[in-house]
Amino acid sequence: MTDTVKMTLDEVRALARSVLAAQGLAPAHVEAVAETMVAGERDGCTSHGLYRLLVCAHTIRAGKVALDAEPEIVESAPGLVRVDARGGYAQLAFALGRGPLAAIAKANGIAALAINNCVHFAALWPEVEALAEEGLVALAFTPSHAWVAPAGGTAPIFGTNPIAFGWPRPGRHPYVFDFATSAVARGEIELHRRAGKPIPLGWGIDAAGRPTTDATAALGGAMLTFGGHKGSALATMVELIAGPLIGDLTSRASIEHDGGANASPLGGELVIAIDPAGFLGGAVARQLDAAEMLFDGIQAQGARLPSERRYAARARSEADGVEVSAKLLADIQALLD
Amino acid sequence: MTDTVKMTLDEVRALARSVLAAQGLAPAHVEAVAETMVAGERDGCTSHGLYRLLVCAHTIRAGKVALDAEPEIVESAPGLVRVDARGGYAQLAFALGRGPLAAIAKANGIAALAINNCVHFAALWPEVEALAEEGLVALAFTPSHAWVAPAGGTAPIFGTNPIAFGWPRPGRHPYVFDFATSAVARGEIELHRRAGKPIPLGWGIDAAGRPTTDATAALGGAMLTFGGHKGSALATMVELIAGPLIGDLTSRASIEHDGGANASPLGGELVIAIDPAGFLGGAVARQLDAAEMLFDGIQAQGARLPSERRYAARARSEADGVEVSAKLLADIQALLD
Repeated sequence: MTDTVKMTLDEVRALARSVLAAQGLAPAHVEAVAETMVAGERDGCTSHGLYRLLVCAHTIRAGKVALDAEPEIVESAPGLVRVDARGGYAQLAFALGRGPLAAIAKANGIAALAINNCVHFAALWPEVEALAEEGLVALAFTPSHAWVAPAGGTAPIFGTNPIAFGWPRPGRHPYVFDFATSAVARGEIELHRRAGKPIPLGWGIDAAGRPTTDATAALGGAMLTFGGHKGSALATMVELIAGPLIGDLTSRASIEHDGGANASPLGGELVIAIDPAGFLGGAVARQLDAAEMLFDGIQAQGARLPSERRYAARARSEADGVEVSAKLLADIQALLD
Repeated sequence: MTDTVKMTLDEVRALARSVLAAQGLAPAHVEAVAETMVAGERDGCTSHGLYRLLVCAHTIRAGKVALDAEPEIVESAPGLVRVDARGGYAQLAFALGRGPLAAIAKANGIAALAINNCVHFAALWPEVEALAEEGLVALAFTPSHAWVAPAGGTAPIFGTNPIAFGWPRPGRHPYVFDFATSAVARGEIELHRRAGKPIPLGWGIDAAGRPTTDATAALGGAMLTFGGHKGSALATMVELIAGPLIGDLTSRASIEHDGGANASPLGGELVIAIDPAGFLGGAVARQLDAAEMLFDGIQAQGARLPSERRYAARARSEADGVEVSAKLLADIQALLD
């Protein structure tokens, strides 16, 4: 079997950097964007790993991202941080805003960061994990393109609108979840379409608003939210708090801006950080122990914590490297030709 | 048909106050607690209306609430408010913390309120609606008693752990949702048990962790979260941020404290408030208009916004009063005998 290629994480990093640089992305962006791909590949989230080089190249060639944007901090209330990404990728803007966000959270107990006018193709867990590693509790939200119908509706209006959460665990990887408020990722439906397989009921509706098991019909109609009207309410919340609340695009405005280019979404991201010491003072260690009892109680009954598999993949990848699809590497190589 | 009795909202209020006072609740608590019952009855949420007088009376007679607790603001970081409810009902503690929460949110852009050591039996929408009426975006969370199993697990560890959200709509009632992260309310399963009706698969598991359609078996086993592992992750988040993060009980600790009394849960509540002006400055009105376009887009396709029915019931109740079950009124009357 030679359909995968073994790579070290340094090799993954070097490949990502060289491809991004070859697309004309400015050096600071190359470094920041490449790291999220290394993190995705390392953690076994291959859909957010090197595969995203193809997504980035497409977005860049469509002219939908500012290659040398220099994010800047703009004015906001004292408990907030607002970074204008100026049409560039979100990663560098987060890198700029992260320090001030954490500093205000540690001073005030709570703070929020808005990243505006950014192109977003990555998962949100790297952001909340980084903040939780600093001892903060973190929440992150971002809209995307309007692909998802509201519960009881017939047409796309929400993005896949993920919600991510991080909780610090001293001496361990943070408790982290990051999930779309759509029933599944759009890529999952695309995989079914390519494989000619039906999708389960509940993933999507056709262009007439009827439930469908046809992947192509769902992609041309609308995806559905997870959890019925509750998931739909959460998707609405993400639209609001990572859209109008921070002066940025809704998913519908993002897909209109896209104009059929099928590039990565443009818009905003909201990150909230809370310092446990703000409420707890000297009782932080004791309360983090109480949280560990909760995690123990979940795992003791055979249930998994959300990021367990990801952290296990990370340990393997750091020791042994990763296996990357030879087909994917050929597609990536073609970007350099 | 004489199985309902017509009452004005003033009559509902007077009844709630007289029954609560007769149970020995101190006057300030009587007033605050009665208002949530009036609001529930008014908005057609009868399970959170006068019915809760029975719940309160039971909790009071079990000795599980401090009748004359005087909530006090305790020290926390400058961007936070922390109110110790001292074992009393949550309503008065929220009334104390609400002003400082809103003031800090308006000064800093974001703030959070922790209510500690409170007894909680009410919905969360009154809190987020009140803050949204002031122009703030609000989120609220509270654990309850450990009744709900994690996805993939077999035993109760989470409460029904609601999440509530409010968004200001100038000239209209706020956009508000408030839902349990359990598949359904516990009361819904109890209604099925009393009616001898099976429950749908997905609501609960029996004491051996097996899926069940038997309401009694589910009540003796565990409820399930909505939306599978995503709802389970959200339930975990609520346990963490309205429990250990604010130095308060988890749902498991609450039910241990209860000791079989079947009283209302004891623990904490977290409320986060964000001032749109903190990010938007003078652009608030324009961005609230963008939010209205989102709501219009949802309603134009025949989907409902979460609180539509509640607000419609409110309009009817304010004009015409409410119809209250004669059986319920008899049960309430018995508390006065």
